[in-house]
Amino acid sequence: MDIREKIMQMKAMAPNMAASSHDKRNQALSIAKQRLLEEKEAIFLANKTDMEAAEADGATDALKKRLRFDEAKLADVCRGIDRLIELPDPIGNIELCRELDEGLVLKRICVPIGVLGVIFEARPDALVQIASLCIKSGNCAVLKGGSETKATNAIWFSLMEEAVVSAELPALALVQADSHSDIDELLTLDEAVDLIIPRGSNGFVRYIMEHTSIPVMGHADGICHMYIDKTADPGKVIPLVLDGKLQYTAACNATETLLIDRDYPAEARDALFDALRKANITVHGDEKLVDAFGFLPLGEDGFAHEYLEPELSVRFVDGVEEAVDHINTYGSHHTDAILSEDPDACDYFLKMVDSAGVYQNASTRFSDGFRYGFGAEVGISTGKLHARGPVGLFGLCTYKYTLVGDGHIVGDYASGKAAFHFRDLSLVILADNP
Amino acid sequence: MDIREKIMQMKAMAPNMAASSHDKRNQALSIAKQRLLEEKEAIFLANKTDMEAAEADGATDALKKRLRFDEAKLADVCRGIDRLIELPDPIGNIELCRELDEGLVLKRICVPIGVLGVIFEARPDALVQIASLCIKSGNCAVLKGGSETKATNAIWFSLMEEAVVSAELPALALVQADSHSDIDELLTLDEAVDLIIPRGSNGFVRYIMEHTSIPVMGHADGICHMYIDKTADPGKVIPLVLDGKLQYTAACNATETLLIDRDYPAEARDALFDALRKANITVHGDEKLVDAFGFLPLGEDGFAHEYLEPELSVRFVDGVEEAVDHINTYGSHHTDAILSEDPDACDYFLKMVDSAGVYQNASTRFSDGFRYGFGAEVGISTGKLHARGPVGLFGLCTYKYTLVGDGHIVGDYASGKAAFHFRDLSLVILADNP
Repeated sequence: MDIREKIMQMKAMAPNMAASSHDKRNQALSIAKQRLLEEKEAIFLANKTDMEAAEADGATDALKKRLRFDEAKLADVCRGIDRLIELPDPIGNIELCRELDEGLVLKRICVPIGVLGVIFEARPDALVQIASLCIKSGNCAVLKGGSETKATNAIWFSLMEEAVVSAELPALALVQADSHSDIDELLTLDEAVDLIIPRGSNGFVRYIMEHTSIPVMGHADGICHMYIDKTADPGKVIPLVLDGKLQYTAACNATETLLIDRDYPAEARDALFDALRKANITVHGDEKLVDAFGFLPLGEDGFAHEYLEPELSVRFVDGVEEAVDHINTYGSHHTDAILSEDPDACDYFLKMVDSAGVYQNASTRFSDGFRYGFGAEVGISTGKLHARGPVGLFGLCTYKYTLVGDGHIVGDYASGKAAFHFRDLSLVILADNP
Repeated sequence: MDIREKIMQMKAMAPNMAASSHDKRNQALSIAKQRLLEEKEAIFLANKTDMEAAEADGATDALKKRLRFDEAKLADVCRGIDRLIELPDPIGNIELCRELDEGLVLKRICVPIGVLGVIFEARPDALVQIASLCIKSGNCAVLKGGSETKATNAIWFSLMEEAVVSAELPALALVQADSHSDIDELLTLDEAVDLIIPRGSNGFVRYIMEHTSIPVMGHADGICHMYIDKTADPGKVIPLVLDGKLQYTAACNATETLLIDRDYPAEARDALFDALRKANITVHGDEKLVDAFGFLPLGEDGFAHEYLEPELSVRFVDGVEEAVDHINTYGSHHTDAILSEDPDACDYFLKMVDSAGVYQNASTRFSDGFRYGFGAEVGISTGKLHARGPVGLFGLCTYKYTLVGDGHIVGDYASGKAAFHFRDLSLVILADNP
């Protein structure tokens, strides 16, 4: 069966996956976790094969660090699966229940999106995270991993598929795509695939967006800001900035630009610049800052630059309003933070910054599905439609309206023979929203 | 100021509109309603101008009927505005409130999408409905109406704009686009416009979708089905089918295909066919049905045809499973109904049909924002992402995550110095969800 046929069959059985019980979906996750632990030596071995191939290919240390899969990462993966199992079933959740008229009841019910195509670059645990989220949310998924994690992905996929089959979920709920030509085929199947989720470099995501008419959820740039207000607590500022920039420089939620209030005390500011220097962070600024502080000039794209390295842009601003304008103009609507002890400035910032994540006195690095308590994420969306920020279960669901009547016709309401009364009935809401 | 400058300014002040108080937004709606009533004679006069132009252009009776704006339609418009005013404010609603760790609180907060471009064809009250929804939801909107309602739109727009300004909302929250070149400009402004909503014919919607990289919400086809189960109550079937097909044949939620269970009693079936004949509904079917019942053959696109006329496709199926397969294969995921007295068949249908609206013993014509109690709609979406079905306030909102900490850094969680505890705090949910 070629990839096209597999995906068409997947589409046809997607409603069965959507209608599967929460028990079966959780059971698949339990089995998956158990099998991952049982097969951990085989997984580490596969990872070693991938690492050796990367080594032979002259991979950078950063890439090798990202590729490595060890006991600690396995523990994270298992914790993520446990968290997912704990989370309530999003599917079937009734978001609205309204009696339109006597005996005519409208419900808005949470359902899976259907068929997802997830294409991801090097990160050895991506496949498990994504497959787990898809299973929990009743979605079907075509999974395509990067060639850098080929051996690891092969074993992951076989274990996840085994778990799906053991739990008596539809076997074609997960399909692995192997080659570039599989991706090309996937991107054309707009009748069968509801959503493409690419995870990888900017260039990779842009390529996907430009080569399909299927909706794409993801983000290209992550230009995250920290604004240091005049009232910021200098004792918090330095650890926050260093964490935002350095905790994982290659991440999309790493801080790329510091906006510093001109009224932030000079002494505290100099201490911050000292700390940046000691941490070997290269600082860029406009001409005045180059002259005054010996910073490097900004690059061609000015403040709209994502370094993904121990480098930062710095700009002085006149208060929170100018900071917000800067962020809404040059940012990528990903995650932006204010460091401030002034509640009014914080309120203004949280309300006016138009980003998926808007933070107060917290590192931009928190923008992540695990850290939000979602168990896992399929990626982070900077689009404003459907899902924003880290996408966990909630972002993999949509809804449908059901209307149950007893022969109700619209003509009676148009003629005035009947009238709507719109009475909202008891609403079932998840206490802990996924 | 040309349209591009206006839209760029609109984008810049969209966060102000988003942060405006519910009182001001409701006040703008009250003023709008009052002004519409005060100026009703001028509105009827403008509508007369549009009607005369249509007449001179040789408009069909159907078009003229759609264009006419009278006291009854004015009353509907006012009822819609009243309903919108009554609805709770969606903006600022906290959908999730989770303590990640001591003093580190994550919230998911409902916010407006931002800047919408709404392009609509002939229907004289569309502008008011759309502008009202945008005001209530804190969105900014570029509005472009069809040339058939030029005079009516001009007066509508000036009244709505006046209401916005009187309520001290940002003046550029609403902008009217006048020409085709304005639309072309709008479609290129992907940095400023968050969403395009086209309302009109299939060809029109497809044109928009193909000419912009801005997300588009809407639908091209409305191929809605009624499945008549063997247990269907014949007393309900005929009124439901006639209502679904005839109550407004040009609507996207009109029924286009009847699927009839082979075991539906022959007598009841013949009575139904008689009723169709008496109502002058042209029936199409496959070769066997052409021979057996004198139906017309199907057209080139077979069962995937939207008539928008008093015409229907008919097919016999073997029970609910075949009906569901047919709908998921040939339908447009808009609105589909089962007519049945068998709870199991109904459950199966409601669960397995992958459409925005799935109905039981109710006419497909109910699929509409007014009838769902949304006060108004900007259109109906057959996409699965973001909004599905009639789009009211709820579909014009998105969310952002706020995270408030006190100097929290990710490094402490990576090193094990701190740990997340994910405690969901009291959740504020609207009792009557818009």
